[in-house]
Amino acid sequence: MSFEVKDKDLLGRIGKLRTKNGLLETPAFMPVVNPLLQTISPRRMKREFGCEVIITNSYIIKSHFGELPGLELHRFLDYDGVIFTDSGAYQILIYGEVGVTQPEIIGFQKSINTDVGVILDIPTGWDEPRSRVEYTVRETLRRAKEALPLISDSDILWVGPVQGGRHLDLVAYSAQKIAEMPYDIHALGSPTEVMERYNYPVLVDMVMTAKKNLPLERPLHLFGAGHPMMFALAVAMGCDLFDSAAYTLYAKDMRYITSRGTVQLQNLQYLPCSCPVCRSITSQDLKELPKGERQSLVAEHNLHVTMAEMEIVKQAITEGTLWDLVEARAKSHPQMTSAFKKLADYKEELEQANPGFKGHGVFYYDYNSLAKPQVTRYKKQVLSNYAGSQGREVLLLFRAPEYKPFNHYPGFLNVKRKLKQTLNMVEICFFVAPYGVVPELLSETYPLSQFELAEPIDHETTKFTVKNVLDYIKAAKYSKVILIIGYGDLDAMLEDALNSMEVDLRVIKTDSIWSDETVSRISEAYTG
Amino acid sequence: MSFEVKDKDLLGRIGKLRTKNGLLETPAFMPVVNPLLQTISPRRMKREFGCEVIITNSYIIKSHFGELPGLELHRFLDYDGVIFTDSGAYQILIYGEVGVTQPEIIGFQKSINTDVGVILDIPTGWDEPRSRVEYTVRETLRRAKEALPLISDSDILWVGPVQGGRHLDLVAYSAQKIAEMPYDIHALGSPTEVMERYNYPVLVDMVMTAKKNLPLERPLHLFGAGHPMMFALAVAMGCDLFDSAAYTLYAKDMRYITSRGTVQLQNLQYLPCSCPVCRSITSQDLKELPKGERQSLVAEHNLHVTMAEMEIVKQAITEGTLWDLVEARAKSHPQMTSAFKKLADYKEELEQANPGFKGHGVFYYDYNSLAKPQVTRYKKQVLSNYAGSQGREVLLLFRAPEYKPFNHYPGFLNVKRKLKQTLNMVEICFFVAPYGVVPELLSETYPLSQFELAEPIDHETTKFTVKNVLDYIKAAKYSKVILIIGYGDLDAMLEDALNSMEVDLRVIKTDSIWSDETVSRISEAYTG
Repeated sequence: MSFEVKDKDLLGRIGKLRTKNGLLETPAFMPVVNPLLQTISPRRMKREFGCEVIITNSYIIKSHFGELPGLELHRFLDYDGVIFTDSGAYQILIYGEVGVTQPEIIGFQKSINTDVGVILDIPTGWDEPRSRVEYTVRETLRRAKEALPLISDSDILWVGPVQGGRHLDLVAYSAQKIAEMPYDIHALGSPTEVMERYNYPVLVDMVMTAKKNLPLERPLHLFGAGHPMMFALAVAMGCDLFDSAAYTLYAKDMRYITSRGTVQLQNLQYLPCSCPVCRSITSQDLKELPKGERQSLVAEHNLHVTMAEMEIVKQAITEGTLWDLVEARAKSHPQMTSAFKKLADYKEELEQANPGFKGHGVFYYDYNSLAKPQVTRYKKQVLSNYAGSQGREVLLLFRAPEYKPFNHYPGFLNVKRKLKQTLNMVEICFFVAPYGVVPELLSETYPLSQFELAEPIDHETTKFTVKNVLDYIKAAKYSKVILIIGYGDLDAMLEDALNSMEVDLRVIKTDSIWSDETVSRISEAYTG
Repeated sequence: MSFEVKDKDLLGRIGKLRTKNGLLETPAFMPVVNPLLQTISPRRMKREFGCEVIITNSYIIKSHFGELPGLELHRFLDYDGVIFTDSGAYQILIYGEVGVTQPEIIGFQKSINTDVGVILDIPTGWDEPRSRVEYTVRETLRRAKEALPLISDSDILWVGPVQGGRHLDLVAYSAQKIAEMPYDIHALGSPTEVMERYNYPVLVDMVMTAKKNLPLERPLHLFGAGHPMMFALAVAMGCDLFDSAAYTLYAKDMRYITSRGTVQLQNLQYLPCSCPVCRSITSQDLKELPKGERQSLVAEHNLHVTMAEMEIVKQAITEGTLWDLVEARAKSHPQMTSAFKKLADYKEELEQANPGFKGHGVFYYDYNSLAKPQVTRYKKQVLSNYAGSQGREVLLLFRAPEYKPFNHYPGFLNVKRKLKQTLNMVEICFFVAPYGVVPELLSETYPLSQFELAEPIDHETTKFTVKNVLDYIKAAKYSKVILIIGYGDLDAMLEDALNSMEVDLRVIKTDSIWSDETVSRISEAYTG
C-alpha cells in the first residue's frame, strides 16, 4: 500500500504517500510548473516555499522537448522533490483534442521518470449536455482499463480520474468503476469551472459523492483546485492533493490571494499578510515596481499564502479543530457559507470518519456548528447505549447548571443528597444545548465535560436541542417525566414540546433550581 | 487638531495622529518595550516588523536610569519612531502603589522627550467592590484635572484615561468627564483582565459605553489589548491604539499566537503561518533549538502575526469589509462569537458611524449578518423616504427574482408591460431577505443592486425579513396588498404574517411568478 494515514479529523487526514522519489506528506498543494516559463523556479519552490511536490504537464514537455535524448524530469526541472505529471487531459478540455495517443503519453511519462503519472482521461466540462458527460465517464473508464497493461510494469504511481461533473449519479458510477481498478490515487475531474463560478455548494456534492464511492485508503486529488480559501473545506471532505497555477496566473493579472479571497493589487492600500514578501515592502512600493518584478513578488506572495494555508489546515487536523477552521473560512463569501451549510447534509459521513477525543473541548458558535461530529456521535451513542438502559420508570430532567461537569456542581450534589430516598427509583439527567439529554454519569465524559457554546443560542439550536430531548424520552419509554426548568427560551420550548407527548409530565418551573424548595417539589411530583 | 480621520468603516477608522516626532497612522499596535530587557530591539521592530510606534514604561526608566543626565528616550531605546510612555499606573494595579508622584512622573516624561505621555491614573481592577471602582474613577478624574497645568506647556500629546471597569454607568461618567478636559487621546483602562478571562462580551459593552461618551475626533487607546484575535472587533468599535507585551510574554511560555487564538509550541506539529520565521524553519527544528533562540523566534513570529493582523484590519476598512472580518474572527472562540452577537446590540451606533458605498457588494452569511449597517440604514431610509410616498392605495408585492437588479429582470419587465393599464394605480415592490420591501426604483441602487445572501436562509433571517415587510406596509397605509409568492419558507411565513394584518390581502401563490397567468390573476385581484 503506497498511502498511509497518520492522523484524521472529519474526512480529512494527514497521510504519507510512498513514491519512488520518497515519502510525500498529504494534504499537499502542488504548484503547477509550466515547463516553458517559470515565475518561481522549482528549486526555489522547494527551498524557500517548502514545496515538497510539484506538478507539470507531460504533454507540453513532449510537444516541445520530446525529441531530446535521455530527458529526465527532475534534472530537466532542476527539482529533487516529488513530481506529478498531467497527461494533456486539460488540453482536451480546452481545445477538444490533443495530438497524442494514450499509449504514447503513458510511455512518455514512464520514459522521463515521473513520480506520479495520469492516464489520458476525458474531462467533463461544465455546460455539457448529459450525453456528452456520459461519454466522458464511459471513455475515461475505457481508457483507464486500456491503460492497465501499460502501467502495470512501472514503479510510478498512477492516477485514475473520476468524471461526471455536476451529474452526481454519473460521478458515483464513475467512482465505483474506477475504484475497482488497481490505481494508486484517484482524482476528481475539473472542478475548476465550478470554482470559477463560485459554485462551491455543487463542489461539496461532487466531492462527497466521489468520496463515498472511492476507497478511503487511496488519496484523492482535486484537479485544478488551488485557492487557499477552499483548502479547509476540501480537506474536511477528504481531498488529499491539490494543484493549481493560480499563484502565477493570478499574479499575471496582479491578483493577490488571501485565505479569504482574491483582491486586485490596485485595490490594496495595505498588504494584509505576514509573508516574507509582504513584510518587506509596502503596498505603495510594490505597486510602483516595474511590471515583471511586481508580478514575481505577487506570485511569491500568492505561493507563500497558499502553502501556509495548507500548514494551517494540517495543524487543525492534529488538533481536531478542522471543523472550526472550515466554519471560519465559510465567512469568506456567501457561496462558501452555502457550501458549508451543504456539508451539514453529510454529517453522518463526517461522524463515521471522525476520530475520537484529541484533547480539545468542542466549540459551538451557532446553528452552523450543529453538524459537528461530536453532536452526531453523542446522540447515536446516548440513544443506543443509555436511553432506557437503567429500566427506571421516572426521569428527573434538570436544566444543566453552568458548571462543568454538571454532576460535580455543588448545588446539584446538594439536591441529590436530599433526594436520597427517591433516587434509586428515578433516572437523573440534565438537558443542555446542543446535546439534548445528558445522563448524570455521561456528564463527566467527553464531549459533555468539555464544550463551550456561544450565548445567546439561536432558534435552530433551541429546536435541535428540543428534538434531541424528545428523541431520548421516546426511546427510553418513561412513565413519568419530572422537568426542572428555569425561564429561558429553551426551557419554554422544551416544556411546550413535552406537553404534547404522551407521558405523565410534571413541570417544576423555578428561578432557583438548586434550592431546598425544588427538592420538596420534586418529592411531591414523584409521589403525586 | 492632532488627529485626522482618513477612512472609515463601522466605528473603525484609519487616522493620522500628528505627534512631534511625525505622523502616526492608526489603528496601530504598539509593542510594549521593556527598558530593561528586549527580546527584539526597537530598531529591528521598526525595520523588520514595520512598528512605527512602540510603548515603554517611564516609571521603570525613572526607577533605574532616572539619575542619568540628559536621558533622551529615542536615543536611549535606539528607536526613531513614535514613542508612547506609560506612567506606572499598571504598577499601581499590580502592586497597589508606586513611589512616585504625578508631578514627578509627568515631569520625567517631559524631560526624556516622550512623544505621547500619560497621567498617573488609578486603574480599575476586575474583582473590586463598587466603592473601590468609584474611587478609581473619581481619583483618576481628579488627577487628570490636576495634571492640566503641568502638561499645558508641552508639545507632547497627553492621554486621559477612562476608568470604571465593567460598571458601565461609571465608564459612561468617567468618559463624559474626561471628555470635557483638553486631552489629545483617551484610553480605556485595563481590559487586560477581561480578556484574560475571555470575557469579550463585557469588553464590547465597556468599549461601546466609553466610545459613546467620548469625542469621536480623539483617538481611543485600548490599554493592554494585544491579541490579534480581537483587533478586528475592537477596531470596529472605534479603538485606534493597542498595546501589549503579549508577543514577548507569551514567547517566554512558548505560546504561539495566531489570528485565531494561542497554541502551546509543543502542541504545534506544523507552523500555521506565512511569516518569515515560520516559512524558514519547521516546527520540529524550532522545538529543538536552545531555549533562548527558540523564545526569540516565537517572539518574532508573535510580533509578525500581530502586526500583519493590523494590516488585514486596515485593508478591510478601506474595502468596507470590516464587518465580514469581524464575523470571520468571531469563529475563533465561542466567547468571541458571543461578543460579536453583543455588538449587534449597538447596530444603531454602527450604522450612524458607517460611511456609504465603497464599491463592494454586501455579503450576508447568516442571521449574524443582520446587524450590518447597510440593512439598518436601508430600513430607516425606505421607511422615512419611500413608504407611502407615492400615495398609491394598492401594493403589488412580488417575490424578488434571482436576477439583479430585480427591475431589469426580463420576466419582470414582461409582466410589467402586460399590466400596463393598472400600473399607474399601484405601487410595485419586491420583497427579499434580509431587506424586506424594495420599491422598484430602489432595486437598482446600492445596496439592493449588489448583495449576496448565503442560501438557505435561517429562521432568524426569515423572521427579520417578514418584520421588515410588515413595518413597511404599516407605514405606507395601503388599502390593498396583492402578494405574489412562491412556495418557500419566507413566502409562507410572510403570507401568515400579512393574514393577521388589517389590510385587504390578495395572495397569488404560484410556481411561475413571471407568467401570463400571473398577470391575469393580478388583474383579477386588482379589480375584484
